[in-house]
Amino acid sequence: MKLIDIFGALKKDMDFIERQLYKSIEGGDELLSETSLHLLKAGGKRLRPVFVLLGGKFGQYDLEKLQHVAVPLELIHSASLVHDDVIDDAGTRRGKPTVKAKWDNRIAMYTGDYIYARALMIATELKNPEIHRTLAKAMVQMSIGEMEQIRDFFNTEQSVRHYLLRIRRKTALLIAISCQLGALAAEAPKEVHSLLYQYGYNVGMAFQIRDDLLDLCGTEKTIGKPPGSDMRQGNITLPVIYALQEEKLREPLLAEIRGIQAGNGSGSVSKAIDMIVSSNGITRAEQLADCFIDKAMEALAGLPEIKPRTHLKEIALFINRRTY
Amino acid sequence: MKLIDIFGALKKDMDFIERQLYKSIEGGDELLSETSLHLLKAGGKRLRPVFVLLGGKFGQYDLEKLQHVAVPLELIHSASLVHDDVIDDAGTRRGKPTVKAKWDNRIAMYTGDYIYARALMIATELKNPEIHRTLAKAMVQMSIGEMEQIRDFFNTEQSVRHYLLRIRRKTALLIAISCQLGALAAEAPKEVHSLLYQYGYNVGMAFQIRDDLLDLCGTEKTIGKPPGSDMRQGNITLPVIYALQEEKLREPLLAEIRGIQAGNGSGSVSKAIDMIVSSNGITRAEQLADCFIDKAMEALAGLPEIKPRTHLKEIALFINRRTY
Repeated sequence: MKLIDIFGALKKDMDFIERQLYKSIEGGDELLSETSLHLLKAGGKRLRPVFVLLGGKFGQYDLEKLQHVAVPLELIHSASLVHDDVIDDAGTRRGKPTVKAKWDNRIAMYTGDYIYARALMIATELKNPEIHRTLAKAMVQMSIGEMEQIRDFFNTEQSVRHYLLRIRRKTALLIAISCQLGALAAEAPKEVHSLLYQYGYNVGMAFQIRDDLLDLCGTEKTIGKPPGSDMRQGNITLPVIYALQEEKLREPLLAEIRGIQAGNGSGSVSKAIDMIVSSNGITRAEQLADCFIDKAMEALAGLPEIKPRTHLKEIALFINRRTY
Repeated sequence: MKLIDIFGALKKDMDFIERQLYKSIEGGDELLSETSLHLLKAGGKRLRPVFVLLGGKFGQYDLEKLQHVAVPLELIHSASLVHDDVIDDAGTRRGKPTVKAKWDNRIAMYTGDYIYARALMIATELKNPEIHRTLAKAMVQMSIGEMEQIRDFFNTEQSVRHYLLRIRRKTALLIAISCQLGALAAEAPKEVHSLLYQYGYNVGMAFQIRDDLLDLCGTEKTIGKPPGSDMRQGNITLPVIYALQEEKLREPLLAEIRGIQAGNGSGSVSKAIDMIVSSNGITRAEQLADCFIDKAMEALAGLPEIKPRTHLKEIALFINRRTY
């Protein structure tokens, strides 16, 4: 089930955004358009554009303007995925071969660079320096988050706080500004921007925690890529940190993780995953995701009671029970 | 000899820009600051900031403002070098190990992403959407140019026009907008921006042709990296295209290039280089560089006769006889 199917109200506008997304990467080098389109056409939830449009509903909704925020945000997200796949050595994404698998690492790197640059170019069609600044700042934070993730591979000593800081940069921030910039581009009142940012930030945190849970508990069919990939590359996620806190599990799980690290991704991760799934780590991670969703709802409570507020509420609930 | 030594008049301001450059990449992840600083501290000519400051002299020169253009332009250039080195498999740059050689490809990729994002963030401290837009557009063109370069590796059928289009995107455009944005940030008259852009574009073309010549005729000591690296990676530059046009040389040179391609960069390139150096390709490339310098001078002739105009003239002449 796609988010855009849930909200028939947005369907026409989201179709427009979809077309603009494809258009946005045309007109450069042929190969670049092909590699960029490859990723975009593989689908995706278009969560960030949905948030932009819903944010825009709290001000003077103008799709012509909002597209210049919605398209860049989805592009920035896409570019980060292409670069992610280079790092993760990922073969599939959204059920299709990744750019790096279909072409190569160098082409994936420049495809990412191109999509980032196009994103900014489209945003500058709105002559609003605050929007440009917010996007650039988010990109700085995202690249810091990506670097932290590399550094933290196989770091079994990291705290929950450390994990949360990382996913804040890596994921939550971009979702937060998607909500915020929608309102900003629609010239909604300042307190609305700030509440939407709070909502987006908390939803984004829950989203990443759920994503990390799915990598442990999902199947290739439901998540579009082989599960356990975090484990294989040493990405220590929240359920793992919690499981490592359990006295009986700690030593055997550490031994498994060391084995995975030594095998350079070639060994099986199923034993480690079984241990984590049998721990309280899953439930505790789900509870933390619930907490973030609760905070998102609190932020919503401060917003005007219009239909889009209900939509935002439904998305938050959807994210928290998603199985893909 | 460094450019900043030639122009004592700019020394103090360039020292300030140098400090701001270092500052610009602080405050993120420690490793990111280290990798970013590594490249910046290896030096470089700081040509783009010099052009920004000189461009600014044609308007209301304000270093406080100009830094927000000069620093981003040098950062964009630096980021492109880091990503270049990933692609080129380069071991040294400016006589020091590259980021990818000292750390690894993944770290080099995110270092580039971080520096790009920082560049844009600093530019948005000036609330001038036209500046943001010009930078974003240039980044789009640069990434197209980089992709074209990968696609054109070992393409011995490319025309001079094709080569010129590629270096326009890869190099000339960023130098052109350096001159232009200096004037724009200093609110110089419109016709000044345009003449400075013309000057920068032509100087940039000559610069890249000279750079390509140096890779064939320079020594590791003078150019800070092993010569012949273009040849090794199949980057067909102007002198090569010209040499391939010579009837007697064409077949043996093609055979050499095929051999280099088959050897995957492991074989010797000295025979191919000897052939090119013995052809008229070197002189013809030098002549084309001279043409671009002449056009740069024509653009300068339309500018007000102030001291910075003489400086721009001297830089153009310097670039055209540079041996490093």
